[in-house]
Amino acid sequence: MKKFINDPADVVTEALTGLAAAHPELRVDATGQYVARAGAPRAGKVALVSGGGSGHEPLHGGFVGTGMLDAACPGEIFTSPVPDQILAATQAVDGGAGVVHVVKNYTGDVMNFQLAAEMAADEGVAVETVLVDDDVAVEDSTWTAGRRGTGATLLVEKIAGARAEEGGKLTEVAAIGREVNIGSASFAYALTAGTTPAAGRPGFDLPDDEIEAGVGIHGEPGRRREPLRPARDLVAAALDAILEAKPRDRGDRVIVLVNGLGGTPLIELYLVYGEVARILGERGVEIARRLVGNYVTSLDMAGLSITLTRVDDEMLRLWDAPVVTPGLRWGA
Amino acid sequence: MKKFINDPADVVTEALTGLAAAHPELRVDATGQYVARAGAPRAGKVALVSGGGSGHEPLHGGFVGTGMLDAACPGEIFTSPVPDQILAATQAVDGGAGVVHVVKNYTGDVMNFQLAAEMAADEGVAVETVLVDDDVAVEDSTWTAGRRGTGATLLVEKIAGARAEEGGKLTEVAAIGREVNIGSASFAYALTAGTTPAAGRPGFDLPDDEIEAGVGIHGEPGRRREPLRPARDLVAAALDAILEAKPRDRGDRVIVLVNGLGGTPLIELYLVYGEVARILGERGVEIARRLVGNYVTSLDMAGLSITLTRVDDEMLRLWDAPVVTPGLRWGA
Repeated sequence: MKKFINDPADVVTEALTGLAAAHPELRVDATGQYVARAGAPRAGKVALVSGGGSGHEPLHGGFVGTGMLDAACPGEIFTSPVPDQILAATQAVDGGAGVVHVVKNYTGDVMNFQLAAEMAADEGVAVETVLVDDDVAVEDSTWTAGRRGTGATLLVEKIAGARAEEGGKLTEVAAIGREVNIGSASFAYALTAGTTPAAGRPGFDLPDDEIEAGVGIHGEPGRRREPLRPARDLVAAALDAILEAKPRDRGDRVIVLVNGLGGTPLIELYLVYGEVARILGERGVEIARRLVGNYVTSLDMAGLSITLTRVDDEMLRLWDAPVVTPGLRWGA
Repeated sequence: MKKFINDPADVVTEALTGLAAAHPELRVDATGQYVARAGAPRAGKVALVSGGGSGHEPLHGGFVGTGMLDAACPGEIFTSPVPDQILAATQAVDGGAGVVHVVKNYTGDVMNFQLAAEMAADEGVAVETVLVDDDVAVEDSTWTAGRRGTGATLLVEKIAGARAEEGGKLTEVAAIGREVNIGSASFAYALTAGTTPAAGRPGFDLPDDEIEAGVGIHGEPGRRREPLRPARDLVAAALDAILEAKPRDRGDRVIVLVNGLGGTPLIELYLVYGEVARILGERGVEIARRLVGNYVTSLDMAGLSITLTRVDDEMLRLWDAPVVTPGLRWGA
């Protein structure tokens, strides 16, 4: 294994140290192991808290800031954060208007956020949970009952975060987050496996001429192994899967996320976006906004995911609202 | 080779198609093969043009926009753009106040930009060239006489771009660009080689337990092969090399760029930034600003570079000025 690390056991803590040094506008609590906006809690503002295993950066710590998350709880690599950690973050950012937990649908995350929400309720903090389960590749998976939560998490956090920033109430913020998730569908391909520092070798074996279609962001198996095909064919198949699960009519508007899983060059992501734009154009689906880059990663996995989220005017307004975070920034 | 491409010969063109589709605020000229700001030329504004081989994205096409480049000329992968292409871009964005060419110091780039500058002069366009040669690893290299141009290119383009945006004259914009380069020093490590679509295999061989210290952004050899060491030791050695080449006194202020070469997870880049901040703190060098991410890449190479640029108040003011490009964005 070749990585820029010291002791594999210290990777998450040391990366948080670096994040804190790089972003004085964040408050990194090393004891509680969470990342919060400086100045939190803000009285009367609904707070958003997310989290999950590390290794998916910039998700979630890189999305803490104005217009998006109030706090993020990074677990160890590919390991759910623990309930105490989530509770500490929840209490740290609650401004009295309640807290929305954005939870990717993985068994450990769901269980630990659930426990933390109950503990928070006991402490008088109102919590609403938005479960993200946009990955249409498989119904159940290695660590999931139901569909996995992947790329749409970014859209939920951005759009619900904007609603909270402008003063939305707890139920309103949660409601639009759920609506974004319902309107979202994702599909991913892996060309190679990522390598966790603890294991020190690729998470799965993939022959030189095969790819994993429908892979999860921890390298979980997808639909099948298949031979590598030209990008245009892979994109067409991904969009078929997405539009079969969540049909879109001509004239529907979507936000498209072409997301690198960590080891894919940007030049390939743009090439893929070109194919997505061409095919959706042929199908009459209007791309209202788009994002191309590495946002929800799987360490150094060569691969990508495509997410389509159906949007209306209200969601577009919230998408366009200012966001200032390490990983996503515009309008301010 | 596993990549998200169609025909290897079409990668650059198809990626430009995707870039154009994703960023309607850019004007991609498929014939001339350059990327320009929509609305260029702007009368009376000094224009900045850069370019070089593709495979380093977001450099340069991703840095076209408000406050940075007016145009970029992408060559084929790791291949210099041709003079006609550079001339077309230069003429397309010249608003009558002259054009600054930002050129990374590689023999092909230098020669082709030089030819294009002469051709532009014949057409009545005043051109000043800013040569970037910040990489302190080696004096001469595979494709270079003198030091190679790498990470500092981003800082030159950002700071000179801001000076042009606020109305700086041709000589002023070029002068501050040169000053940024003179104050910059970079050093890179490769853990793995990148794979070009045309070759279809890694650009060089690196044993499982060795790294290339001082690698170039095309995989050119650096100072030596050496065993992998903990991140803290690699960072210390890189900073030694940087500060030996360009000594900094206690109290000097710098902008730090911790730049991924394409295949390195963000969590490792932040861990490395933490080490950089600690060591510079011990040495009394003040980090005035910093940037952590993938900006000047080498396809899917696992590796990173560290750049230190000495800055004064004027440079910081220009660094902080609004920039709106696909790859770098703040303040607007």
